[in-house]
Amino acid sequence: MSALPHVVILGGGFGGLQVALELARAPLRVTLVDQNNHHLFQPLLYQVATAGLAVTDIAVPLRQVVRGQANTTVLLAKAQRIEPERRVVVLADGELAYDRLVVATGAESSWFGHDEWALHALPLKDSRDALAIRSRILLAFEAAERCEDPSARERLLTFVVIGGGPTGVELAGALAEIARHTLARNFRRFEPGSARILLVEAGARVLPTFPEELARRAQAALAGMGVVVRTAHPVTNIDFDGVELGPERIRSATVLWAAGVHTTPITRTLGAPLDRAGRVHVAPDLSLPGRPEITVIGDAAAVPWRSGTVPGMSPGAMQMGRHVARNLVRELRGEPPLAFVYRDKGSLATIGRSKAVAVLGRLRFSGFPAWMLWVLVHVFYLIGFRNRFVVLTGWAWLYWTKQRGARVILERPD
Amino acid sequence: MSALPHVVILGGGFGGLQVALELARAPLRVTLVDQNNHHLFQPLLYQVATAGLAVTDIAVPLRQVVRGQANTTVLLAKAQRIEPERRVVVLADGELAYDRLVVATGAESSWFGHDEWALHALPLKDSRDALAIRSRILLAFEAAERCEDPSARERLLTFVVIGGGPTGVELAGALAEIARHTLARNFRRFEPGSARILLVEAGARVLPTFPEELARRAQAALAGMGVVVRTAHPVTNIDFDGVELGPERIRSATVLWAAGVHTTPITRTLGAPLDRAGRVHVAPDLSLPGRPEITVIGDAAAVPWRSGTVPGMSPGAMQMGRHVARNLVRELRGEPPLAFVYRDKGSLATIGRSKAVAVLGRLRFSGFPAWMLWVLVHVFYLIGFRNRFVVLTGWAWLYWTKQRGARVILERPD
Repeated sequence: MSALPHVVILGGGFGGLQVALELARAPLRVTLVDQNNHHLFQPLLYQVATAGLAVTDIAVPLRQVVRGQANTTVLLAKAQRIEPERRVVVLADGELAYDRLVVATGAESSWFGHDEWALHALPLKDSRDALAIRSRILLAFEAAERCEDPSARERLLTFVVIGGGPTGVELAGALAEIARHTLARNFRRFEPGSARILLVEAGARVLPTFPEELARRAQAALAGMGVVVRTAHPVTNIDFDGVELGPERIRSATVLWAAGVHTTPITRTLGAPLDRAGRVHVAPDLSLPGRPEITVIGDAAAVPWRSGTVPGMSPGAMQMGRHVARNLVRELRGEPPLAFVYRDKGSLATIGRSKAVAVLGRLRFSGFPAWMLWVLVHVFYLIGFRNRFVVLTGWAWLYWTKQRGARVILERPD
Repeated sequence: MSALPHVVILGGGFGGLQVALELARAPLRVTLVDQNNHHLFQPLLYQVATAGLAVTDIAVPLRQVVRGQANTTVLLAKAQRIEPERRVVVLADGELAYDRLVVATGAESSWFGHDEWALHALPLKDSRDALAIRSRILLAFEAAERCEDPSARERLLTFVVIGGGPTGVELAGALAEIARHTLARNFRRFEPGSARILLVEAGARVLPTFPEELARRAQAALAGMGVVVRTAHPVTNIDFDGVELGPERIRSATVLWAAGVHTTPITRTLGAPLDRAGRVHVAPDLSLPGRPEITVIGDAAAVPWRSGTVPGMSPGAMQMGRHVARNLVRELRGEPPLAFVYRDKGSLATIGRSKAVAVLGRLRFSGFPAWMLWVLVHVFYLIGFRNRFVVLTGWAWLYWTKQRGARVILERPD
């Protein structure tokens, strides 16, 4: 086609999409590769899993986002491996040659070496996961309504969320609201409010990345909603019947996994040093050491920050995406790449209706102000005006009626 | 539980749900059985298939609808057969005894004896069908963007809708809008507006149940949108490569089936006389001849009207549901059942943005007034305020921006 340098971006998440958008006017040929046709607003995925939103409310077609960029092509394909020597990306069906490569392939659930747990615990990384969780939760209540045996029913009405990070806290809080409010008066054989929701965390407290004071408040808020929080309880086994915490067994039909993540396998094909989570150790400018034509961003990259690394959340990924795009433009001008500097925007976690915790620089919020901040930030960053509008009205509806608009089981019982 | 007579309703569609709602205050034990946990607003299903709405926008949980009715239980289960002698319904997992049975199991797609066509043509009867069609349509455009061979690309960009009834007309019109407006500027290798959309009808004209004049206008409106309408062209074959209309072959990667329907197999287990479409010939009070304790309503029943039968649309099903409920209450009072009288509310079909046709008694509308009427009627009958609101705002959005909020492919390419 054109003689312009070809930039290939792997992944249309927060990082990769940001690169493409920043390069809109650059004299480059840009190809954005993703195995989904849409960008997914991950921070709200737990609300799809808990029947508050539809997948389509938090997804926007990648083609639509970049439709105005004549220099950008979107490719719906799965990248299988990278061959740095040949400068090609091998797809399931073909190859893609690049001059510059941006790896923004993110992370997937990690089972800490217990892959067999994947048979029993449900992860939450993509839209299919969210729909699977939604069905499992709703089907557990349906099965309980048909169940004659009290102890079997108790197992069906026990929900275990593993992992006390923001996602785990959000899932546990939403489950409590579903049981106590959304499903009220929907069943004849049992009181949905009697469902047990457990949040299990191996570490000393929930929200380990948050200040201790806020984590305590989040834990208190969860307890107030009826969630049983078990900190310092590492999971030792997960099977069809439930979860084992050392000697203790919790019988549960619905175990949700919000614990660990690991980069997608493709990072291994870069032949670069990786950390335990499979993240690439990048140079200060986010490039692959010794391979300036390849950069790695977002959850796929281990970028040093303070005592650890940049947290795997959207602000970091977007900042890295913009930085890489700027360095690509600098390169066109013959300027050297700049080192990436992460700017901490603080962190937010929501627990439920009017309940959240927030850190903004030195400021700490909790309760309604933090929740309002959470709502505003998420709506603001949600791509696509229509989605913003639909999500905001959906939340208003949920707030006033406690009803959830997406209580749909797509699977058939048989 | 209780000594009250047990009324079992099979099917939570327009007819069955209406029966349950009307019996809310009756001294009866009501069990509503459906294989889905939600009532689906069928008339808008084509908009889910064409990425205009999410399934959750047109679905409402059955439990939520009847939550206020202490006498009503919802059972998520698949009814396999009815045993009239024993007065039981056999479920996939157990049995259900009834005193009175209402069969409202509706219809499914019929292939006119060519079941092999089901491998290549996509039907549109439930939410899974709609999501499958949505993916197929969007994936065809994605594949075209990656396709080097012009003739293969032409096949990918050819969409054939079989069946000129309201659903076929609605699908063809929506496809034309997607190609010409929604996807504009989304692709680099081809102009989406160049996609071919064909509407194939075996009969002499589209919308056979409508007055000829309106059918002509609908056909003209479709032509104006670029849809090629082929009337008097019966389909003789459907295979992986496309469709055959007698000697003519149309190469197409996406064939949608909106032609025939047949009742679900369970009606056969009633041991009653059925018509060609499997519908039960019922007595004037909608009961099974010789079995007054069983009534059949909606698409499952063949109810004489004028020269034919009551059309298989929601108004007829809802009227039958209310009638059966009233007869059940009359029976409790020792009063004899009344004969069912269908009241024709007219008919509506939409072709696209500001385009529709409507018959109301002697009145005939087309164009914007008919479309407005269509919008109002559908929003009015949509169950659940939230759905009404979400759908209405979604349509306003679609109307002004021509963008569709549900352009999401859930399947992975590999």
